[in-house]
Amino acid sequence: MDDASPPPRLPALPAIEPGSVWLVGAGPGDPGLLTLHAANALSQADCVVYDALVSPEILALARPGAALEYAGKRGGKPSARQPDICGRLIRLARQGLRVLRLKGGDPFVFGRGGEEALALAADRIPFRLVPGVTAAAGGLAAAGIPMTHRTTNSAAIAQGAPVLIFYMALRQLDAIAERLTHHGLSGDTPVALISHATTGAERVVEAPLAEAAAAAERAGMEAPCLVVVGDVVRLRRALDPAASIEARAEAAQALAQHWRRAAG
Amino acid sequence: MDDASPPPRLPALPAIEPGSVWLVGAGPGDPGLLTLHAANALSQADCVVYDALVSPEILALARPGAALEYAGKRGGKPSARQPDICGRLIRLARQGLRVLRLKGGDPFVFGRGGEEALALAADRIPFRLVPGVTAAAGGLAAAGIPMTHRTTNSAAIAQGAPVLIFYMALRQLDAIAERLTHHGLSGDTPVALISHATTGAERVVEAPLAEAAAAAERAGMEAPCLVVVGDVVRLRRALDPAASIEARAEAAQALAQHWRRAAG
Repeated sequence: MDDASPPPRLPALPAIEPGSVWLVGAGPGDPGLLTLHAANALSQADCVVYDALVSPEILALARPGAALEYAGKRGGKPSARQPDICGRLIRLARQGLRVLRLKGGDPFVFGRGGEEALALAADRIPFRLVPGVTAAAGGLAAAGIPMTHRTTNSAAIAQGAPVLIFYMALRQLDAIAERLTHHGLSGDTPVALISHATTGAERVVEAPLAEAAAAAERAGMEAPCLVVVGDVVRLRRALDPAASIEARAEAAQALAQHWRRAAG
Repeated sequence: MDDASPPPRLPALPAIEPGSVWLVGAGPGDPGLLTLHAANALSQADCVVYDALVSPEILALARPGAALEYAGKRGGKPSARQPDICGRLIRLARQGLRVLRLKGGDPFVFGRGGEEALALAADRIPFRLVPGVTAAAGGLAAAGIPMTHRTTNSAAIAQGAPVLIFYMALRQLDAIAERLTHHGLSGDTPVALISHATTGAERVVEAPLAEAAAAAERAGMEAPCLVVVGDVVRLRRALDPAASIEARAEAAQALAQHWRRAAG
């Protein structure tokens, strides 16, 4: 560790409400790569349910007296089952506790954060999703390997990836849709356009791939705008922070039923 | 914004040294998604060189009296040229200032952070790379769209992606190498293995794809381990934080020369 410095200036940060769960990414390990939301949640939560990739230095920032519960999974070792973890989060929230579910990296990238959020939505537990620095971004920066993507092969990507994310692609929407459908993606593939993500000016528009450009124009979407293409967009009905808790519960239950049927 | 809460507990954080540059990701826009390192750098830097995607709420956290310099690029608007930005960072550092280069999202994902870091390395300017929450992770979480990758098509991915990143893949290294070479990747493709990334226990091993599994075993690499496959691994010589400033400068200059030749 380098020399310590005086504490940084911080913005006003939202509080965890009692009876709710925050699903938070802890980043790759270095406590300095926690987000301010994550550090804030750690200093407030009554109970921290953490996984194997959350470092001891990070857990040391939890509020004194907070219950720290291990729910890790690691190859070859005994591990908590996913339905048990979801059930535990729901029980803790129903006790009126401020619950922090802390996962290594970003909770949505390989973290099964989506499954846990759906379970909370289905049981009408208020929750908040806080992304984190991914292990990939952290690890590459620490090792000195930039991840600069300049050229890609859109045919291979269209066929290989379960979700496609384009940065700053608002003006290329027509061209993107044309290329992807040319390479086999259906024009019905759901697309979400997210403008000014995570700021007060955030707007989200959904449309099928074939109509995305027209929908963006109609809605007057502005850059910067993320374009997300893939079936995962359908999960938004259950997880949209702006939706009512009832609407999310209905959507989450319908999705769970659909998957049970699909799984046979 | 929700209700504000008392300030969080924070770990000891390293200081920016005068005469050095921190290349830092500001995340997707919400100041709560700044990392602790980023907030800390903002409260210390003498000069903040920021791009168009850094929000005013984030710039408001800069140390009073810090010089805020815009170096943004945005489609259709006049923009700073990349060599000018690199030159400016180098000049500011040579004046002995603590320089913060603040970029939206993660500096290495589409942010040309790699180019700026190489320029600093070539001119022997000490620097630090601080990853951020990507706009994709932030935007998807804000909109309620999880990015859960469960199944992928490795043939399409091998041909489509300029860099491949595998999480927790230490035990599957042989299988991964076999699949990727079967689908056309050369056994000479450089691979970096990064164990315990960003923590005090971090270790990095490099090897060609065909020998990666044996190299990992020889080095006694432990999980969790990121596996990075692709030519970008070669940039590590110039950007490795553990290398000497002289070794980085030599590697960065050699790379620049190589690219100039390749570009004709």
